[in-house]
Amino acid sequence: MKLVRYGNPGKEKPGLIDDNGQLRDLSGVIKDIGPDQLGDAAIAKLRKLKADKLPLVKGKPRYGSPVANVGKFIAIGLNFADHAAESGLPVPKEPVVFMKATTCIQGPNDPVMLPKGSVKSDWEVELGVVIGTRARYVSQKDALNYVAGYCTINDVSEREYQIERGGTWDKGKGCDTFGPLGPWLVTRDDVANPQKLAMWLDLNGKRMQTGNTKTMVFGVAKIISYVSQFMTLMPGDVITTGTPPGVGMGMKPPLFLKKGDVITLGIEGLGEQRQDVVGFKL
Amino acid sequence: MKLVRYGNPGKEKPGLIDDNGQLRDLSGVIKDIGPDQLGDAAIAKLRKLKADKLPLVKGKPRYGSPVANVGKFIAIGLNFADHAAESGLPVPKEPVVFMKATTCIQGPNDPVMLPKGSVKSDWEVELGVVIGTRARYVSQKDALNYVAGYCTINDVSEREYQIERGGTWDKGKGCDTFGPLGPWLVTRDDVANPQKLAMWLDLNGKRMQTGNTKTMVFGVAKIISYVSQFMTLMPGDVITTGTPPGVGMGMKPPLFLKKGDVITLGIEGLGEQRQDVVGFKL
Repeated sequence: MKLVRYGNPGKEKPGLIDDNGQLRDLSGVIKDIGPDQLGDAAIAKLRKLKADKLPLVKGKPRYGSPVANVGKFIAIGLNFADHAAESGLPVPKEPVVFMKATTCIQGPNDPVMLPKGSVKSDWEVELGVVIGTRARYVSQKDALNYVAGYCTINDVSEREYQIERGGTWDKGKGCDTFGPLGPWLVTRDDVANPQKLAMWLDLNGKRMQTGNTKTMVFGVAKIISYVSQFMTLMPGDVITTGTPPGVGMGMKPPLFLKKGDVITLGIEGLGEQRQDVVGFKL
Repeated sequence: MKLVRYGNPGKEKPGLIDDNGQLRDLSGVIKDIGPDQLGDAAIAKLRKLKADKLPLVKGKPRYGSPVANVGKFIAIGLNFADHAAESGLPVPKEPVVFMKATTCIQGPNDPVMLPKGSVKSDWEVELGVVIGTRARYVSQKDALNYVAGYCTINDVSEREYQIERGGTWDKGKGCDTFGPLGPWLVTRDDVANPQKLAMWLDLNGKRMQTGNTKTMVFGVAKIISYVSQFMTLMPGDVITTGTPPGVGMGMKPPLFLKKGDVITLGIEGLGEQRQDVVGFKL
């Protein structure tokens, strides 16, 4: 099942994409798609709906993040060996965990805004995992049962803020617009194997990143189990699981985002994003 | 004005402490104390209430965190020169920013639970700043106008997770129970100077930390202005501003929390906390 939130920013309604790729309105059934709608029982209820009986949405509305009210936006760093290499850093022995400010979350096709004076903003296509059930100290074996679904994420990053400004990576990861999510939240029953999904990202139509979740250093189950030892994962929390090689920082010479650029990206079965890069605006 | 949330976990009601130190119920006036109640206009309305007309709360209810629905829990590291020294780290040139998982937030007197297998859990008395008004790229001069109020925080930290497990500090800062807040949210009009507040922390009745916010490397106004360049601060966001010397990690030999310990701490004018340290429980 492909769940979406559509409409103007802050006014999104819940919806789903039917088998014909048409957008259907869910606002008569659920209030939103957020922590209260992501548990197994809630999703099973939606599953039982006859999609062709739901109101068809006309036109081409904007998509928002497919998850509302994200409590924590957790990120895993250096989770592809070849990306660690291009970053000049060793492959981590255990997952590198950092956090993105939840205020950076936006729709999949909303513009990415360069922070004031930014000269090192960069792209990262990543598999997003949306938690459906509260998870504390869960085993790797059980971990995927706590997942509501998966989505495409661009883990936009300002490398100067992340690396050269002291302290942790969080400074360069949570700027406004740095977290495009979606378009769809694909429920986990529709993702046969989260470790076998092709990933790609183009900058101005030129392929920059090509990867597959099969080459992750730590897989989704391991990541969920691991993070749940350090903090309780709640329904609606999002974990973004690391990027394959091909980011701007790794180019020789490095290449960073500038006003007017267009980023397109996607993950197999999870849908595509398109962002215009725009200059800073207060 | 001293705002509180009282009652059982998850069922807290809003209240205030009147001039005689008595708890008065605010649930007939506001729904909760969270993002929607922290702006200047909302607080001005509460100010106009006659406290002695509000229902008196009988007994000794538990206090919860004085802020509900915290969106981001941001922390500043190494913000006292002498604490940086005891940590064996240089005084930072600009604020060190990391994030605590919001799921670690709890009431001021709730027990602190050692994570499973933890042998390096530690204490940190800190001044908490609660944001009242959305702040983006604000100047240092204006920054304090964006504050709703201040509170006492224990920035409980697991040093092995924080420092020895790879990646950023976030791993050792957001464990469940690692964020006691309160008891009071003291509105900013009642804090004459946030840079002149005495701070202390005792472990089992023995003074471990003595400090004053006047020796911060970066003051509250600078911190708010700085963080607002990297992420948008929202009403209900909390920033914890760093600890003075005297943490367990800095002792020779280091001293860490164990089951049965009692932590008491306080900040001048912002109230006191008391936590029993308890063992891990799933």
